[in-house]
Amino acid sequence: MDKLIEYFLKFPGIGPRQAKRFAYFIAAQDESYVKNLAELILKVKRNSRTCVGCFRIFDAAGDGRLCDICSSPSRGGSIMVVEKNVDLENIEKSGAYRGKYFVLGGVMPLTGNNKNGIRLKELFEKIKKEKPEEIILATSATTEGENTNRYIENILNPLGVKITKLGRGLSVGAELEYSDGRTIANALEGRH
Amino acid sequence: MDKLIEYFLKFPGIGPRQAKRFAYFIAAQDESYVKNLAELILKVKRNSRTCVGCFRIFDAAGDGRLCDICSSPSRGGSIMVVEKNVDLENIEKSGAYRGKYFVLGGVMPLTGNNKNGIRLKELFEKIKKEKPEEIILATSATTEGENTNRYIENILNPLGVKITKLGRGLSVGAELEYSDGRTIANALEGRH
Amino acid sequence: MDKLIEYFLKFPGIGPRQAKRFAYFIAAQDESYVKNLAELILKVKRNSRTCVGCFRIFDAAGDGRLCDICSSPSRGGSIMVVEKNVDLENIEKSGAYRGKYFVLGGVMPLTGNNKNGIRLKELFEKIKKEKPEEIILATSATTEGENTNRYIENILNPLGVKITKLGRGLSVGAELEYSDGRTIANALEGRH
Amino acid sequence: MDKLIEYFLKFPGIGPRQAKRFAYFIAAQDESYVKNLAELILKVKRNSRTCVGCFRIFDAAGDGRLCDICSSPSRGGSIMVVEKNVDLENIEKSGAYRGKYFVLGGVMPLTGNNKNGIRLKELFEKIKKEKPEEIILATSATTEGENTNRYIENILNPLGVKITKLGRGLSVGAELEYSDGRTIANALEGRH
Repeated sequence: MDKLIEYFLKFPGIGPRQAKRFAYFIAAQDESYVKNLAELILKVKRNSRTCVGCFRIFDAAGDGRLCDICSSPSRGGSIMVVEKNVDLENIEKSGAYRGKYFVLGGVMPLTGNNKNGIRLKELFEKIKKEKPEEIILATSATTEGENTNRYIENILNPLGVKITKLGRGLSVGAELEYSDGRTIANALEGRH
Repeated sequence: MDKLIEYFLKFPGIGPRQAKRFAYFIAAQDESYVKNLAELILKVKRNSRTCVGCFRIFDAAGDGRLCDICSSPSRGGSIMVVEKNVDLENIEKSGAYRGKYFVLGGVMPLTGNNKNGIRLKELFEKIKKEKPEEIILATSATTEGENTNRYIENILNPLGVKITKLGRGLSVGAELEYSDGRTIANALEGRH
Repeated sequence: MDKLIEYFLKFPGIGPRQAKRFAYFIAAQDESYVKNLAELILKVKRNSRTCVGCFRIFDAAGDGRLCDICSSPSRGGSIMVVEKNVDLENIEKSGAYRGKYFVLGGVMPLTGNNKNGIRLKELFEKIKKEKPEEIILATSATTEGENTNRYIENILNPLGVKITKLGRGLSVGAELEYSDGRTIANALEGRH
Repeated sequence: MDKLIEYFLKFPGIGPRQAKRFAYFIAAQDESYVKNLAELILKVKRNSRTCVGCFRIFDAAGDGRLCDICSSPSRGGSIMVVEKNVDLENIEKSGAYRGKYFVLGGVMPLTGNNKNGIRLKELFEKIKKEKPEEIILATSATTEGENTNRYIENILNPLGVKITKLGRGLSVGAELEYSDGRTIANALEGRH
């Protein structure tokens, strides 16, 4: 039991109390739920593949090495660089973007030269080979995200491709009265 | 993947967004973590048993039918009636109680006569047979909890055992300025 | 304007942003609202008196020196000791208590012997003179509150009056699953 | 006292409980604080003037009819249209803008033709007369704000001045994972 709690503790956003509740929940479910859950966990892992095109983790029953976005003929022209899988999925959900992606795997830390295992070399190679019309840097609007943007721009600049960044400004619902100074400055700069 | 998300959605306190994050988390973990997790889930379920004494779910490698509390010679005299397993575990953590328990499995709904699958008959039989020195009703201080208390009192009264309820009043840290009227009334009534 | 913001900053629970909004709010109101507000502020202060019986601040147009509770013939028998005015008003709102009060003016600090200007001597004198049937200590369920209770008990014990404290336990709405250990211990001790 | 509580209830963001605490706070302060507060309130109101240039409420000891921004020779070129005074002050605090303002006094409601007392006519007259290089619409990124923007654009279009809107996109600190679809679409559209 304690071991299972330990394992649940590694789930994203789960603290000791909830990990415990999960373990009790498992213990109290009927046999079939628990069996199916264990099988699904193994299956999802077995079928999960990292796309060789964009490093997105995708669910593939067959043996394709490219995810559905990378292998779609109707997507393309631009490559959007995102930090992680869930960012990509959230952008897909918005329906606002019809190009391709590249999953960086993280952001640059603010100090030191440790690249945190992020796929800078792979990004460089992909851009060099594919020469997309536009690269859209879609990191989060945090200090680490901005830092990562600058770093990528420096690396990709020699390749001579067009690099853009997501607009900064007022997010939907934001009120001027409560906006911080940097958001106001960004919104003013990005006026159109 | 969608099926796994559905299964995670049944976890206590988990909404669609977090269920999704869990599924991606599974997909991104290394093989050994996922295998161990699946095995632990099955094992916890396999080893989980409902104690025939108090209906607590407990973790038993052997084939004992009583949990460690029910089989401990140093616990006893009183039986504390709790709504669910996690309540029992939290009370145990407090170290304040040295008697036995009875897990009711829920509370009485406020309307209707539906007993919600709670173990009223089993409680009656246990009390009738064991004749404990004291029964402590430890339901939550909610309307449903109080309702359940009253119901149990009516059922157990003919057995002639002493029935008490947990004290109502100011919880630790409560300030008079922000306490609601019923808590103040309870605290006043329970002054000592 | 800045000076007014400074004054609003002293209002209970008001930070810089809200103090500023208050000042702009004043500037934007019509003449009559602002005049009335200023007059009411002065009037409330002028008519506010500290009751010589219980040290409650009360609103008196005439020149009575006792508040309505202290001068009511239907209230009495017991004296409830509270930390501050708003506690008293909240208890009155509950309608659960029909005795008299004593406003201590604060709590004992946890360290040092500094009594923080609280009215310990006045309490002693009042109890000695009035010999109430019961003294109810109604400080908050915080460490400072409990500390203050103990201190008062020591002081009043020689007078031989009955001293009680508000019940500690589960406040209305509390669930066992989320209750802290000391609340559980209190609720168990206060079972009835 | 009750009357003062009523007056405090009109303060922005203040509910019954806090209004009451304010009234008790007033009653418990010393004479000099209360006197000064009442005087400051009257003074701020007396010295507050609505700027004839931009309709900002400003604090003027003398008898100038223009606020310091409107009368500053170093500010100008553009006019930023804001909803209310506190928006203007927050933008000033950011230090990002060096032009002039126009305080609209509110937003257009979503339904009906009621203009809510906002200064559309005054805005039209000012723009017609001053012919600024640019008008920056700085309403909040809410549905009402966007609606108001469209309305103003329709009104001012015949005057042939350049009209821009604050950039929409990721506000500082926003993460892609948690951004809503419309913010993502705005950020993508506003990429640069």
